[in-house]
Formats: sequence, structure tokens, C-alpha cells
Amino acid sequence: MLKTTEILIGDYLFLRLKQLGIETVFGVPGDYELALLDLVEPLGLKWIGTPNELIGAYAADGYARINGAGALVTTFGPGELSALCGIGGSYCESVPIVHIVGYPKISLQKTDKILHHTLGDGRYDRYQKISSELSCATTVLDDYLTAASEIDRVLTAMMYHSKPGYIGISEDIAYAKIPSSSLNTPIPRTLSPPAPEVQAPALSAIINTLQSSKVPVLMIDGGAARSSWAQYVNPLINTLKIPFFVTGMGKGIADESSPYYQGCYAGDGSYPATVIDAVEAADCILWLGNFPADFNTGMFTQRLTNKTIIDLQRFSLSVNDTKYDNAPITFILPSLTKSLPPLPSLPSTPLSLSLPPLPSTSSPITHDLFFPLLSPFLRPTDIIITETGTVQVGITLTHLPPNSLAWTQQVYGSIGYAAAAAAGASVAALHPTSAHNRIVLITGEGSLQLSIQSLSLFRRVGVPVVVFILNNKGYTIERFFRGWEAGYNDVADWDYLKLFEGFAPATEGEKEERELLFKGYRVKTLGELEDFLGDGEKLLLGKKATCVEVIVGKEDAVEPLKRTFKSASEGGGK
Amino acid sequence: MLKTTEILIGDYLFLRLKQLGIETVFGVPGDYELALLDLVEPLGLKWIGTPNELIGAYAADGYARINGAGALVTTFGPGELSALCGIGGSYCESVPIVHIVGYPKISLQKTDKILHHTLGDGRYDRYQKISSELSCATTVLDDYLTAASEIDRVLTAMMYHSKPGYIGISEDIAYAKIPSSSLNTPIPRTLSPPAPEVQAPALSAIINTLQSSKVPVLMIDGGAARSSWAQYVNPLINTLKIPFFVTGMGKGIADESSPYYQGCYAGDGSYPATVIDAVEAADCILWLGNFPADFNTGMFTQRLTNKTIIDLQRFSLSVNDTKYDNAPITFILPSLTKSLPPLPSLPSTPLSLSLPPLPSTSSPITHDLFFPLLSPFLRPTDIIITETGTVQVGITLTHLPPNSLAWTQQVYGSIGYAAAAAAGASVAALHPTSAHNRIVLITGEGSLQLSIQSLSLFRRVGVPVVVFILNNKGYTIERFFRGWEAGYNDVADWDYLKLFEGFAPATEGEKEERELLFKGYRVKTLGELEDFLGDGEKLLLGKKATCVEVIVGKEDAVEPLKRTFKSASEGGGK
Repeated sequence: MLKTTEILIGDYLFLRLKQLGIETVFGVPGDYELALLDLVEPLGLKWIGTPNELIGAYAADGYARINGAGALVTTFGPGELSALCGIGGSYCESVPIVHIVGYPKISLQKTDKILHHTLGDGRYDRYQKISSELSCATTVLDDYLTAASEIDRVLTAMMYHSKPGYIGISEDIAYAKIPSSSLNTPIPRTLSPPAPEVQAPALSAIINTLQSSKVPVLMIDGGAARSSWAQYVNPLINTLKIPFFVTGMGKGIADESSPYYQGCYAGDGSYPATVIDAVEAADCILWLGNFPADFNTGMFTQRLTNKTIIDLQRFSLSVNDTKYDNAPITFILPSLTKSLPPLPSLPSTPLSLSLPPLPSTSSPITHDLFFPLLSPFLRPTDIIITETGTVQVGITLTHLPPNSLAWTQQVYGSIGYAAAAAAGASVAALHPTSAHNRIVLITGEGSLQLSIQSLSLFRRVGVPVVVFILNNKGYTIERFFRGWEAGYNDVADWDYLKLFEGFAPATEGEKEERELLFKGYRVKTLGELEDFLGDGEKLLLGKKATCVEVIVGKEDAVEPLKRTFKSASEGGGK
Repeated sequence: MLKTTEILIGDYLFLRLKQLGIETVFGVPGDYELALLDLVEPLGLKWIGTPNELIGAYAADGYARINGAGALVTTFGPGELSALCGIGGSYCESVPIVHIVGYPKISLQKTDKILHHTLGDGRYDRYQKISSELSCATTVLDDYLTAASEIDRVLTAMMYHSKPGYIGISEDIAYAKIPSSSLNTPIPRTLSPPAPEVQAPALSAIINTLQSSKVPVLMIDGGAARSSWAQYVNPLINTLKIPFFVTGMGKGIADESSPYYQGCYAGDGSYPATVIDAVEAADCILWLGNFPADFNTGMFTQRLTNKTIIDLQRFSLSVNDTKYDNAPITFILPSLTKSLPPLPSLPSTPLSLSLPPLPSTSSPITHDLFFPLLSPFLRPTDIIITETGTVQVGITLTHLPPNSLAWTQQVYGSIGYAAAAAAGASVAALHPTSAHNRIVLITGEGSLQLSIQSLSLFRRVGVPVVVFILNNKGYTIERFFRGWEAGYNDVADWDYLKLFEGFAPATEGEKEERELLFKGYRVKTLGELEDFLGDGEKLLLGKKATCVEVIVGKEDAVEPLKRTFKSASEGGGK
């Protein structure tokens, strides 16, 4: 119990973040927020300045996906607006981050003076209105009497909805004093558990449905704020003992070394292709966090009519058309694992790990070879973050090791996200309770161009990062949509290894160890790729960051991606 | 006169841009806009893909400041949101650019399918609502019958207000056909001239006020959409024959080789310091585009009581409290030049061009030395773009050559703007009617970090660019506000010359000429700087891009900047 004393409102805000488990704050300084930043480190929080605000927002998202929540601080106007694309992604994919914005002093706002970073029109409400479209709650603190309750309202909504919140705070408000007593009442980090009797009908409905079905399967998707329920998935798999599949958005939650793992279901874009029949032959799907967005469903090429779908979401579940409120997935999953009677045993052939037949070592590298070859390179406990684009489908060909964690921004699909999110994840992985000690980032070079400054964070913060840059000379995923040869789908040639060096020059103390700490490679043939991947442990030992440019063909993509586009263009799916 | 035929709505839009003089469209491709992009080049417009959308927005702003208007194309959601900070800057500083956003097909929007780049909530109106806060007009085309009039409405508002407009357009709308007849009625590129009798009272008021004043001066500021009236300034100066001053925002419009040029007025942050008394001793100020924002007024340290201010704005003018509507600066200035009777001759001592006393060649480089030394390096017709921060005040110490053009984003002050705006300007300068054939970019390294990918554009597009990176190990301007030694004001060490090389690797055809085409330098002492600047013509001849890293002290800034902060902290100004 904290003693009731007076504290600064700025301190109150940051102490609330600490209570939510947020230990690092990302952002870019600006003069309206500097006084606020002076409070960060004395409270034991860590400040990580990012090269720009969008990178800061992505990093906070990556951090929050591991840590449970994240925070970003930017300055009024240009700073906050630069971060918005990242905030939108967190909203879409249900990642709770708080966007704290340093506002001009209230006393100055009340004059008619024109301040920098405004639109020159004397208005101070526009930026909040903008963020309200991408947040579950916003506030701009303008009164010390209501500041604590406003902060609590936004943070409570953020955790409840698992969506971004927005708090505008000026220097004069941040340094006003209020009683600290509200801090004694913690902000709920999780939803409230429903009473057992409330939960019972929903649980019974699931159990009855599973028991009466002949061919039930489990589908692990990525909706319903996946980080909040991911921990309950492997115990459920071990209890259910039925075949399970992942979607692109859900890949990276479940243990793929389980004998029940069958592959990735995305309609006609499934991998392996046998998954299509396996899923579509089921009569019942227990679906965790269903998020039927275009890329996540192989462009709507799923064929799931005449099936019973048990759809578990953040607040409710439904069995076909029957909805059960007050049945959050985070409570249903562990309850189900505990109360599930044995189901009839179903045959499940473990997914084969065999590599495709390999052409000669001098052959070019293809996506279809790269991603299966990546599987043995990955270590248990790795965090694998994959960018939007061809690599996003490619990763479905990789068999992830046990205790690893992986994700991709499947629905929002903002190119440039992954590199910066990897930086944020690398920081979260430092936490003493984290099981993870390495980040593997897989990106195309076109996407990386948007946020390539993220590479500079890898030498300074977090656990080691291995960066695979698949260089295919442009936005190949766009070519599949349109403009196969169009100039607008090309990107400028950059020397990625030189850039990697430029972003991570050795400091004085590191000069002799530079080779050891940061290193870049370029692989052009299958043999070079195999050599690199085979020597992985040796090459990467002790490195802070490694960058591997993988040269692939301009028109190359994995087979399921080609299948999806072919099928979608023929009007496949329902 | 165009024949009335049917054309695609997408073609209609781009033909309207051409009519407005826009010849280059900047942006980043995304699948919702690819069909639209297919229309760009067949119409004779040029497409320039930028490394990210924010850089695209800044580039369109830089282009529009020279060309009169600009255009940016991004994709729905992540693409458009990433550009918003740039759009906000164009709004604040009155630069007309149209933000064209590729929307999902109307037919898809009407289904309940979840599309990528949405927020997953089935809503398609949120992003337009966001942009409406930063635009003078927005539309999302959803009906081919109203498409032409909607496009015209937005573009007309954009040119009238000289502010950004927003047009959302989907593939199915872009490829629907409409009559081309509206194209026969051009969209006004300028305001309508008021009738002479409407303008007469305003003109008389100015002339009478000037004639009855004893010590009138002319102040060239940067408001009222400065690009629209800049061309009328030098003729007015030559007719008025009274001392003139510039503000930070107005610097770069007027010919500083004029004997009437007296320096930069920014209250206690004026340069040279004698300007303060000179302006404050005047009894009348003819003020072009007054924009009294904080940085533009030396943090409100101007002392201008008991003066007659003739305030010329975009739509009206006022003489102290008397306002004259329908008197736009763009028409008043040439009319005034034409109708002005001779004023009493006033003494004006031309501003001395002498350099400060130089310490030994082994001395460190300071802002106070760099900016005066830059003057003789600059060529007539250069375009000089200066970033926000210490360099923004620094440039007031540089004497600009005749027929040059210069600006800085003085009010909105988004760090990262200048490098990308320079890329846009370099494209506009290619125009056959352009007098400009070189861009000089001056940025701090902290600001450059936000948009450093902009360097990659310099090798590919536009006229040659010389980049001065003043490396002072962090956000020095922020240190002046707060946190002199604070870690949050530091930025990561990068190897800028290596990065410059990495962003501009030689293509096959260029390998042998690489040295000639792109080159980086690093100067640490005054002697090295003088050598570089002295050898300028020889070093830079024929180069596409040159990058000069100038090492300056962490706490260094020009004297007027120090004076401003000292004075503001003492409560100076009125």
C-alpha cells in the first residue's frame, strides 16, 4: 500500500505505467515533452529514443506484444502525427499501447500566440480528434483536479479493449501536484473473470459440440488480442489431442513440434496443400481468435460451409449462431483445458519436417527453399518477426521450434513495421522473466526501406538480432496484384550491408571487436545460404546484430502465395 | 478546347493535375492504388516513388513551393497515415498539395469482408475524417456521376486556400468513364483579381500611410502562402527604396544583394544585432505575410508598440485596426509597385558582407563561422533549404546570392522535413522554365536521422544536391529548451558518409564515374571547411550529389539563437 502523499501528475502517469508492467518508454524528444521526460528515469523506467516517431510506435507495439502493454512519447503535432500509422496497426491488431503526447503549456494555449507545431490557427483540439479515430480512449489533461481520473480512464480502457489510448499532457499539468492515493487501486491488467456459473453454459456448449462432432479440429488464429490468451494454447492442445492448424495471423503461438500440428490454413493458400482438404473435411472447428481478413484467409478462398464453428473472441464466444456473452477467450481456454472430458482419439500424422529436394549449390535462392531451410537454423525460444509481403506467406513454410514466438502484422499490413517492431521486441526480451534471448527478423528490402533506421537500434538496445533481408528488387507482393513489370513496383538499389555498417559504427571501446559485435553477409546462391545457415551458431555467437542479405528473384514467391493469387483471380473462395 | 469525349475518372483527375502545372507525382505504391498508378505515365506525368510516405509528403511540399502545387499518392490506411505529418506542415505553411489515396473498391467496401489496411472494424470513413483536420477539403469518390465535380471542388479549394486537399479514389471509380467536358473549364490557379475600384481604398491606405510616415521599413515575412507573392517582392523593393528586413520564415524571397537589405528581424534573436534598433525605431512597417509565430518572432521578443503596421495577407490587408477585405497580397503588391509615388529618400547603408575574424585553421568549426563562410560558396540561382533546429537560426547569418531561393519550415517545425523537401525541390528545378540548377540542403544530424532515406533520392532524381550535415551529437536546439546534458537529447552515432554511399551505390553503368557523381566529405576544422568551400566549384562540378559532414560542438549555436533563449528565459518581449 502506497502512502497518500502528493506527487507530480507526470510521476502519477509513469507510476501507472510501471504498475502495468511497462518498464521501457519509446519515443522521440520534442520541447513540449522534455519536462515530462525528465521524470522517466528517476522513476526507474528506461527511455529509448528512436530515430523517428513511426519507428517508436512500431517498437512500442513489438514491445507490448511480448510485455503485455507498451508506451510511446512524442511531441504535439509533427511528432504525434508521424506515429499515427503505427498506432493504427496497434488498434487493428489489438495491441495495448499508450501514446503520450507532450502538449504546449495550458497557460500558453490560452493566449492567442501562435506556437510552433500547431497548424497556425490557434486550435489545440485537432490532433486529439485525429487520434480519437485510432484509439479506444483519449484525453488531453487540462485540469489537475481530474488528471488522475482521466489518466486512469484511458489506461483502463486501453487494457480492457486491448487497443491504443492517447494522453496529452503539458509541462504545467505534468508538474502540478495531486494526492497519490488513487495509485493504491490498480488498473486491471486483464478482464474480470466471469463467475463460474456465468461461464458454465458457454463451456458446456463447447464441450457438447466437440463431443458430438466426428472430425473436430483446432484452429489457432490471431484475433481477440492474441498475446492475452497465447499462454493457454499449448496446454489446451495437449489436452484436446486433436489435429490443429494455424492461420498466418495465429502462427507462432502454438508448439509446432506437437504431433498434432498439421500446418497453416489459408484457404487455397494453405501450406502444405494437404491442409486444405484436412480442414475442409472437418465437421467442427474450435477457432481461437478468428480474424477472417483477406490475407489471413487466402483472399477469402476458405471453404467452410456446413461446419460447426466454435468462435472464441475477446469478450464472447459463439457456436455457429448462438452467442455467449461474458465468455472471454482468456478465461474459457484454461477452463476448457481443466474441464474437458477425453474426446475420441483422432488419428494425427505429425507434419513431416523433410526439406524439399535441393538443386545444386550454385542455384539461385528461392522463397520455396529459403523458408524450409530456415527451420533448423532457428533456436528454441527465438522470437521470429516477419514483415508484410512475400515473406509473410513464406514463413508458413518454416517449421518453428518449441518455445519460440512468432508474428507478422497480418491484417493491418503496414510495410516497414517488422524491423522496428523487432527492435521493440528485443527490448522486451531483456526482461528477467523472458524466455527469449534472440530476435530473428525476416523482411523484404522494399519494406525495409521505409524504416531502415531501425537497424541502428539493434546495436544499442535489447537482445541480439539476426536480420534476413530478402532482396527481390522491388515490391514483389504488389507485382502479384498488378504491374508485374511496372516501374512503380521497383525500388532503388541500396547497398544494405554498407547501410548496416553505417547505422552501427563501432564506438571507441568496440573498435577491435566490431567484427564480433556486428556483421553483415550477402548470400546469392543456395550453397552460400546453406553455408551461412549451417554455420549459424558459430557465426552468430556473441553478436549484437547480424544482417544477411539474401538475393532472390524479382518474381519469386512461395508456392502457396502463387496459388492464392491464381485462385483469387479465378474467383475462388466463398 | 478539348473535345467532349468519355474518359476514365482516374485520367480526369490526373489531367486536372496537369492543368494545374503538376508534372510529377510522388508517393509509395500499394495494391489499392496500383490501377491508378497505371494511368500516370501514359498521361505524360512522372511518377517518383519515395522510400516512405512521409518523405513523399515532404517531397511534394518542396516541389509545390517551387512549382505552385504538388501531388502525393499513397494507399488507404497505413500509407496515408504515414504521410500525415507532412500534410500537416503543408497546411500550416500554406502549401497546396493534393493527397490522393487509393481506396478499396466500392464493391468490396459494401461487403462485410475484412480488408487489409482497415482497422478490422468494417469502417471506411475513419481515415478521411482524420485527414479532414489537416485539409481544406476532402472527398472520397463513391459515385461516378459526382466524381468530376467532387475532384474539382477539392482542387479548387486547394488552390484558393493554398492548403492541402484529400481525394480518395478506388480502382472501380478510377476506371469508370465520364464525359471529359468539365476539363474545358480550368480550375483557377490563382485568386480572382479584385476590380480596380475594389482595390483602390486599400492601395490608397497603404500609400497614404507610407507617405505620412517618417521612418517606414519593409518587412518580408513568410505567411500568406509566400510562394504565391514572392515574385512581386524585388520589383517592390526597387520601387520603394526603403530599408527592408526579412523574418526567418521570409528569408530567401528577396534579393539580399540589394543596397536596402538590412538583415533578419526576430526580436532579440535578430541578425545582425543592429537590426533590433533599426526595426524598432521605425514608425511604420509594411509587412508582407506577417506570421507572428514563436520561432519567427524570436520567441515573442519583438517590441513593436506605437507603430503603424500595414499587414498584407492572403485575402485582405489591414492598417493597424482598419481591415480591407478583397485585397489579396498577390494583387496588392504589383499594383502598389505600379502606382507608388516617390517616397522621401531614406538613408540605407548596405549590409556589410565582411566575414567574422577567423581563428586558426586548426580551430573547431562553429555555427557562427560556418554560416557566414557559406555565403561566398552559394551560387546565384541556388535553392537553399534549411532544416529546423540550430541551423534554422544559423542561416540568418548567411548572405544569400541574387536570384537564389531559400526557405525553412519555420512554424510547423517538423524535424526530418528538409532533406525530403530538398528532393522534391530538386525535381521541380528540372522544369525547363526553372532558373535553378542546384539545391543546397543544410541539416543537423539529429533531424536527418528521421528521414535519412531521402539521401537515396538525390542520386536518382532532380538537379544536383549538396548536403551539409552539421553533426553536433544530438538535438542541440532541444538542449536550449531543457536537458542540456540529458541523455534523451543525444542521438545514436551513425557513419553518415558510409550511409550516403549505401543509399547511392553506383549502378553498373556508373561504376567508373562514381567518384564524380556522388561524393562524401567530412570536415572537422576551420581549415578543412575553408578548403572544401574554397574548392567548391572544382569539387562539385558535374556531381549528382555531395554530402559534407561538418563536425560542430555539442553545445554550439549562433549568437542570435543564444540571445533569443536568454531573453525569452528572462521574460523578454511583449
